Amino acid sequence: MDKLHTVYYLLELLGTFAFAISGATAAKQRGLDLFGIFAIAFIVACGGGIIRDLCIGAIPPAGLTTWYYLATSILASGITIGLYPIVQRLNRPVLLFDAVGLSLFAVTGAQKVISYGFSGESAVLLGIITAVGGGVLRDIMLSRVPVILEKEIYASSALLGALIVVLGSNLKWLSSDWIAIIAFVVCFALRLLSLYFHWNLPAFSNNKNNFQK
Amino acid sequence: MDKLHTVYYLLELLGTFAFAISGATAAKQRGLDLFGIFAIAFIVACGGGIIRDLCIGAIPPAGLTTWYYLATSILASGITIGLYPIVQRLNRPVLLFDAVGLSLFAVTGAQKVISYGFSGESAVLLGIITAVGGGVLRDIMLSRVPVILEKEIYASSALLGALIVVLGSNLKWLSSDWIAIIAFVVCFALRLLSLYFHWNLPAFSNNKNNFQK
Amino acid sequence: MDKLHTVYYLLELLGTFAFAISGATAAKQRGLDLFGIFAIAFIVACGGGIIRDLCIGAIPPAGLTTWYYLATSILASGITIGLYPIVQRLNRPVLLFDAVGLSLFAVTGAQKVISYGFSGESAVLLGIITAVGGGVLRDIMLSRVPVILEKEIYASSALLGALIVVLGSNLKWLSSDWIAIIAFVVCFALRLLSLYFHWNLPAFSNNKNNFQK
Repeated sequence: MDKLHTVYYLLELLGTFAFAISGATAAKQRGLDLFGIFAIAFIVACGGGIIRDLCIGAIPPAGLTTWYYLATSILASGITIGLYPIVQRLNRPVLLFDAVGLSLFAVTGAQKVISYGFSGESAVLLGIITAVGGGVLRDIMLSRVPVILEKEIYASSALLGALIVVLGSNLKWLSSDWIAIIAFVVCFALRLLSLYFHWNLPAFSNNKNNFQK
Repeated sequence: MDKLHTVYYLLELLGTFAFAISGATAAKQRGLDLFGIFAIAFIVACGGGIIRDLCIGAIPPAGLTTWYYLATSILASGITIGLYPIVQRLNRPVLLFDAVGLSLFAVTGAQKVISYGFSGESAVLLGIITAVGGGVLRDIMLSRVPVILEKEIYASSALLGALIVVLGSNLKWLSSDWIAIIAFVVCFALRLLSLYFHWNLPAFSNNKNNFQK
Repeated sequence: MDKLHTVYYLLELLGTFAFAISGATAAKQRGLDLFGIFAIAFIVACGGGIIRDLCIGAIPPAGLTTWYYLATSILASGITIGLYPIVQRLNRPVLLFDAVGLSLFAVTGAQKVISYGFSGESAVLLGIITAVGGGVLRDIMLSRVPVILEKEIYASSALLGALIVVLGSNLKWLSSDWIAIIAFVVCFALRLLSLYFHWNLPAFSNNKNNFQK
C-alpha cells in the first residue's frame, strides 16, 4: 500500500496549502503586514495539529518540526501577496483543497490520538480540533467570531470523519487503511454537498422578526 | 468520608452544568449555529481544566476524557436551545450554580497541582485558571473583552479559594478535606456576597468626568 | 563569565518589567479592573515563555514558577495604576526596555529549545513566540488584531535574533555566550533603528485609493 502513502502525502500538501492560502487571504484583507500574513497562514496550516499534539503529549508538535508545513506557508503567503487577483479567481479550487485538508486532518488527527493509546472520546474531539483549530485561531487573531461556529456544515463534517475512524478502530471490521479511506470520503462528500447546496446547521435567533430589519 | 465524595461529585456536575449553560446562552445570543453553541458550552465547562492539565503535564487533559463533561455540555446546549425562555427565567439559580463551579474548580484545581508536586505559586495561578479559564476562552471566541477582567469579584474569589488550599497544605493544621471545605465555603461566600451587594474591584478610568456622559 | 549572568539577569528583569508595563497600560486604557490589569500584565510578561515551555515539554512552565515574574507583574501593575501620568511620560524608556525584553526573550527562547535537543526550525519559531507571544495574547484578550502583525519591525527583529542563535549553534564558530551576545545586539539594534526611522514591513492594501478616503 505504498501508493496510498504517496496519495496521502499529496493530499496533505494540497490541504495544508489551501489552509495557508485561506489564512494569508484573510490576513491580507485585514491589512496585515508581510510578517502578519505569513504568521496567520502558518497558524491556519499548523494550529489545529499543534493543539492536538500538546493534548496527547507529542512533543515537540509536528507543526513546528515538519519543514514542508513551513515551506507551504511561505509559498502560500508569497502567492497571495504577489498573485492576489489570481488567488481570488481560484476561489473554487481553493474551497475544494480546503475540503481535502479538512477531511484529511480530521481522519489523521483521530488516528494519531488512537495510536497514542487514548480514548475514543479524545480521538473524536481532537480529530475535530486538528481539522478546524487552525481556522478558529485565525479568526481569534483577526478579532472576529470564528466563522465555522456561525454557519456551514464544516466542523460537523470533521466530527463525522473522526467518528468513523473511532468506530472503525473499535469494531475492527476493516483494515485501518480502508477505514481511513471511507472516513475521508464521507467527510469530504458531506462538506462538498453542503457547499454545493448551501446547507447550514440551524441557528436559533432570538428575534423572530429578523426579516423586518 | 465517602459522603464528601458524593457531595463533591454532585457539586462538580452542578458547576459544570452552570458553566456549560453560560456558554450555550452566550453563543445563542451571538447567533451561532448548533455546533457553535455546543462548542462554546464545552469550552466553558472544560477549557480552564484543559489549560491547567497541559501546564502540569496531565496528559491527556481530563476535560477530553471525562464522559460526563461531554454529556453535561450536550445536555446544557439542548436545554438552552429548546427551553430558552425557561433558561432566561432561571437566571438566579444559574448564577448560584456558576458560583458553585467557580469555587469547586478553584479548590480542586489548586489541589491537583499540589498533588503533582508543583510549587504553591503554580497552584494558586493554575487554581484561578481552572476556575475562570473557560469563561475567558468563551469571551475570546465571541470576540469580546473577558467580562471577568472588567468587573465583579469573580477571579478574586477564585484567588482566595486557591490561596487557602495552598496555605492549608503548607501549614498542615487541618486535614486536606477540611481545608478544601473551608476554601470552598470562603470562595463561595465571597462570590455570593459580591453578587448580592454588587461589589466590584476598583477600575481606573482615564476620564474623571465619566458621570457627565 | 559570571558577570554575563548578572547582566543577563538584570536585562531579564528590565525586559519583563517593560512587557508587564505595556500590558498594564493597555488594560488600564480599556477600563479593566484591578485584577484585569494584573492579569494582562502577567500574561504579557510570561505568556510567550509559557507557550514555548508547553511546546518543548518543560513542565511546569517557568512563567508559573519563577517568583520574580509574578513580583515584577504586580509591581508594574501597581506603578501603572498609582503613577499613570509618570508612566505616560516615561514612554521612551519603556519602549527601550521593551526592545531589551524582545531581544533577550528571542535569544534565550531559541537557546532553551536547542538545549532541549529540538530542531533549528522549532528553535527559530519558538524563539519568535517567546518574544512576541505575550503581546499577541494581550491583544487577543483585549479583542483587537495583534499590533505586531500590522506594523513595525518587531517580530522580524525576533526572527533575526533567533536565527543567529540557531546558525551559530550549528556552525560552532564561537562560544554560545558570544553567539548570544551577537544575536541580542543585532536584534536590539534592528528594533531600535526601526523605531527611530519608523521602518515598517510592507502591507498590501486592496484599495489603491486609500488616500481619497
